[in-house]
Amino acid sequence: MISRIRKEKIILGLDPGTSITGYGVISVTSGKLTLLQYGVIQLGKYGAHELKLSKIFNRVLQLVDEYHPDEVALEAPFYGKNVQSMLKLGRAQGVAMAASLYREVPITEYAPKKVKQSVTGNGNASKEQVARMLMQIFAIKELPKLLDATDALAVAVCHHYLKGKKETTRKKTGSWVEFLKENPGRTPQSR
Amino acid sequence: MISRIRKEKIILGLDPGTSITGYGVISVTSGKLTLLQYGVIQLGKYGAHELKLSKIFNRVLQLVDEYHPDEVALEAPFYGKNVQSMLKLGRAQGVAMAASLYREVPITEYAPKKVKQSVTGNGNASKEQVARMLMQIFAIKELPKLLDATDALAVAVCHHYLKGKKETTRKKTGSWVEFLKENPGRTPQSR
Repeated sequence: MISRIRKEKIILGLDPGTSITGYGVISVTSGKLTLLQYGVIQLGKYGAHELKLSKIFNRVLQLVDEYHPDEVALEAPFYGKNVQSMLKLGRAQGVAMAASLYREVPITEYAPKKVKQSVTGNGNASKEQVARMLMQIFAIKELPKLLDATDALAVAVCHHYLKGKKETTRKKTGSWVEFLKENPGRTPQSR
Repeated sequence: MISRIRKEKIILGLDPGTSITGYGVISVTSGKLTLLQYGVIQLGKYGAHELKLSKIFNRVLQLVDEYHPDEVALEAPFYGKNVQSMLKLGRAQGVAMAASLYREVPITEYAPKKVKQSVTGNGNASKEQVARMLMQIFAIKELPKLLDATDALAVAVCHHYLKGKKETTRKKTGSWVEFLKENPGRTPQSR
């Protein structure tokens, strides 16, 4: 009897922010990347901070429930201009992560430089350069207006590039807790 | 026919942090405060940052689903030592808020000084002084070991004290969005 192994992997890339949160969903089948959806959650129109957070949570949960990603890749800067903006960013990341964690989807974080390096070969590439590379990969004809969408797509692609090789060797435990244990460097350790 | 008006109000107080998250649930009936539950979510034992966030989200959601609070009060410092710790704190706040927002419970934030001022009359009171005042209010016999639990209880009490008067005059819209609109000063406005 031949066992049926699911060869398709879905990756949800997220670039959380309280003004705009970008998302990109890709599928990987036998090394071939396909774009499923990408876009932004525009939050400028909502005055109340809590409402913005609520929108991010609900939309990410919706994406997780629609595409059932196997893994979530998060673009996460670990430093910033000031403590106020970092608190706000942390909250946006927190609600986006909560939606993924609620459905028990493992999260891997990547610094922006890492994403740019992995997608374009240059850690200091501009948003436009990243977008143009993604247009080639996915045969996108027109440059999107909001580059937060391509940023989110880039982190999904980055995740595939950086995890693809490891993926074949690591045990398929199906547990993100196990995965985190095996890859301590991938997540910031608190304390 | 006499309409039945629910006179009891449940408030969930939260003091989120990635090492320890405190919570306190009180009920208010005709101005009388009753302690329903208080405690801490200890997160030190979990190595992975994501696992900590997941625990906070799940436990807060559990509390919301068990006690059906009418309102959530959040102790939220708006400044800190460094950007790294603020990002972490923001994430902890974010997941705690996500659990409340997911069930559409309105959130009000209070700075630590405001909580201390409101409960003890002194904005610079120590954690022990806050705890001792709460022991009096709720006739708690023994000082709890982890004062994060009393801190969370304090923010629930603070919320009752500061909102109690307004509560009787404002329209019962049942919508936190409406409430936020009416009370813009209660939450940080982003952009």
